[in-house]
Amino acid sequence: MAFDLKAYMAQQVALINAELEEILLALGPHPERLHAAMRYSLLAGGKRLRPILTIAAAEAVAGRGASSRAVLPAACALECLHTYSLIHDDLPAMDDDDYRRGKATNHKVYGEGMALLAGDALLTLCFDILAQRLTAFEPDHVLQVVAEVARAAGAAGMVGGQAADILWEKGQHQDGAIAALLSYIHEQKTGALIVASVRAGAILAGSQPYELEALTDYARALGLAFQITDDLLDIYGDEAKLGKQIGQDLAHGKLTYPAVYGVPESKKQVKELLQAAIASLTVFGPSAEPLRALADSLAGREC
Amino acid sequence: MAFDLKAYMAQQVALINAELEEILLALGPHPERLHAAMRYSLLAGGKRLRPILTIAAAEAVAGRGASSRAVLPAACALECLHTYSLIHDDLPAMDDDDYRRGKATNHKVYGEGMALLAGDALLTLCFDILAQRLTAFEPDHVLQVVAEVARAAGAAGMVGGQAADILWEKGQHQDGAIAALLSYIHEQKTGALIVASVRAGAILAGSQPYELEALTDYARALGLAFQITDDLLDIYGDEAKLGKQIGQDLAHGKLTYPAVYGVPESKKQVKELLQAAIASLTVFGPSAEPLRALADSLAGREC
Repeated sequence: MAFDLKAYMAQQVALINAELEEILLALGPHPERLHAAMRYSLLAGGKRLRPILTIAAAEAVAGRGASSRAVLPAACALECLHTYSLIHDDLPAMDDDDYRRGKATNHKVYGEGMALLAGDALLTLCFDILAQRLTAFEPDHVLQVVAEVARAAGAAGMVGGQAADILWEKGQHQDGAIAALLSYIHEQKTGALIVASVRAGAILAGSQPYELEALTDYARALGLAFQITDDLLDIYGDEAKLGKQIGQDLAHGKLTYPAVYGVPESKKQVKELLQAAIASLTVFGPSAEPLRALADSLAGREC
Repeated sequence: MAFDLKAYMAQQVALINAELEEILLALGPHPERLHAAMRYSLLAGGKRLRPILTIAAAEAVAGRGASSRAVLPAACALECLHTYSLIHDDLPAMDDDDYRRGKATNHKVYGEGMALLAGDALLTLCFDILAQRLTAFEPDHVLQVVAEVARAAGAAGMVGGQAADILWEKGQHQDGAIAALLSYIHEQKTGALIVASVRAGAILAGSQPYELEALTDYARALGLAFQITDDLLDIYGDEAKLGKQIGQDLAHGKLTYPAVYGVPESKKQVKELLQAAIASLTVFGPSAEPLRALADSLAGREC
C-alpha cells in the first residue's frame, strides 16, 4: 500500500501545533500583546514543512519511535525561526506585504514596533527551546544543532540571502553573474534553513556520517525545488489557495528562476531536483518513506 | 595600591575588540553591505560593559588566567546581542533615534531594511559564537549559557521589557501599579542581559552555587543602578559626552525612575544599589576587585 502522506502530515501538524501551544503558554502571561503577536503568526496555519522535515529526518535515521518523537522541540524551534523570518520579511522596510496565508500580516494587526519585537522574540525563542527542551539528548549533539541552526539562520545563511535579495531589488548588488547571484539568494534565503531542519533531526537521532550526507543532499535539492516552485506560483498560482497576491516578485523586480531561465526550464529543474532528492535517499529503507513522499508531493504543489 | 580600573578596562576592551574583529572577518566577504552594517554598530566604540562583566565574573570565580581568558568568545557574543538590541531599538518603528554614541544610527546610514537585517544577523551571531567558539568548555556548561542568554534576551527578558516599554508609551499597558511596571521594564530591558553577562562568565568558569548566587545578586543591583543612572543622564547629562540628545525619555513619555520617584530619591537608590552590589561580593577575595571597582565607578558615571 502506498504511503499515506496526507494522514502522516496531519498527524505531525497536530503534534507540532500542540507543542507550539505549550511553548507559548510556558512564556507566562506578560507582556500580553507581545505574546499575542507571536501567537498570531506562529499559529497562523502554516504548512509546517520545516518541522515535519526535522521529524521525518529523525525517523529516516532511527525509525518511528520514542527517539524520533523526542526531536519535536527541535522541530518547533525551527518553525519559530521560520515564522520570525516571515514577520520581518513582511515589514514595510522589507517586502511591505499586507497579506500572508490569507490573513493580514503581523505589523498590519499589531503595528510595526510590536511586529519587529515579536520577530526578535521568536528568533530568540528558537535557541531557548533548543537549549532547554532537548534534555533527552547528549549536550554535545544539542550544541551541534544550535551551531547548525545559528549558522543557517545568520549572515552566512538566511539573513545573508535576504540582504542579497533586497540589495538586488535596490540595484546595490555586487558584481557577479546573475545566475550565480540567483543561486546564492535561493540557497541562503530558503535553502539553508531547510537543510538545517533536516540535519537537526538527523544529528539528534544519531545519524552516521553517510546518512547525514545523504540527507543533506536530499535537503539541498528539495529546498531549491521548493523555492523555484515558489517563484513559479507567484506567476500562475491561485491567489485563494496561496492566501496572498501573486505577481509580487515581478512588481518588486525580484530575481527569480522563471525571470532568469523562463518558465519551462524552471519547471524542468524542479522535476530534476525532486528526482535527485529522492535518489539521495537510496541508503535508507522504508524509514525514509515520509521524506520520499514529501518530495513527490512537491511536484504537484499548489500553495 | 588601589586597583587600576581604567587600565583594566582598556586592556579588556582591546581584547574584546580584537576578538570581535576576528569574528566579523570569519563571516567571509558577502554580502558586503550587510557585514558593513553589522561592523558599523558593533565596532562603534561602545563601553563594552557587558563583555567586561562576563570576563570579570569569570575572574572572580577562577582568578586571572587561561580559563578566564577562554570566556572571551562568550563576552563577545553578549556584545553582539547588546548591539542588535540597540540597532532595533533605534529604528523608526521603535524609538526613532538619529544618533547613538555620537554617530548616525544604523538605519540612517544603511537604510531601515539593512539595519533590521544587521540586527537579526547580530542576534543570530550571538548564538553562533556561543555554540562554536567555546570549545574549551564542557558542552553542558556551554548549553546552560545558551539557555541563560536566550531566556534573558527573549520574551521573558529583554524583548519583553522593550514591548512593555513601547506599550506604556502608547498607553496600551495593562493594569498594575506604575512602580511595579517601572521595575518590570527596567529589570527586563536592561537588567536581564547584565545578569546573563555575569552569570555566563561565572558558569563557564565553573562557579559553585553560592558563588553564582552572589554574582547574580551583584548583577541585579548593578544592572538596576546602571539603568537608573541612564534615566538620570537623560535629564542632566552632557550631550557631548553621551553622544546623543538628552531629554528624549521625557519627549517620548517614557516611564523612568526620576519621573516616578524624583531625582533625589533616584540618586539615593543608585547609591544604595551600588553599595549592595559590592556587599554581595564578600564571598570573593581580591579576584573580584574588577567587579568591585566597576560598581564603584558607576557612581560617577557620566556617559
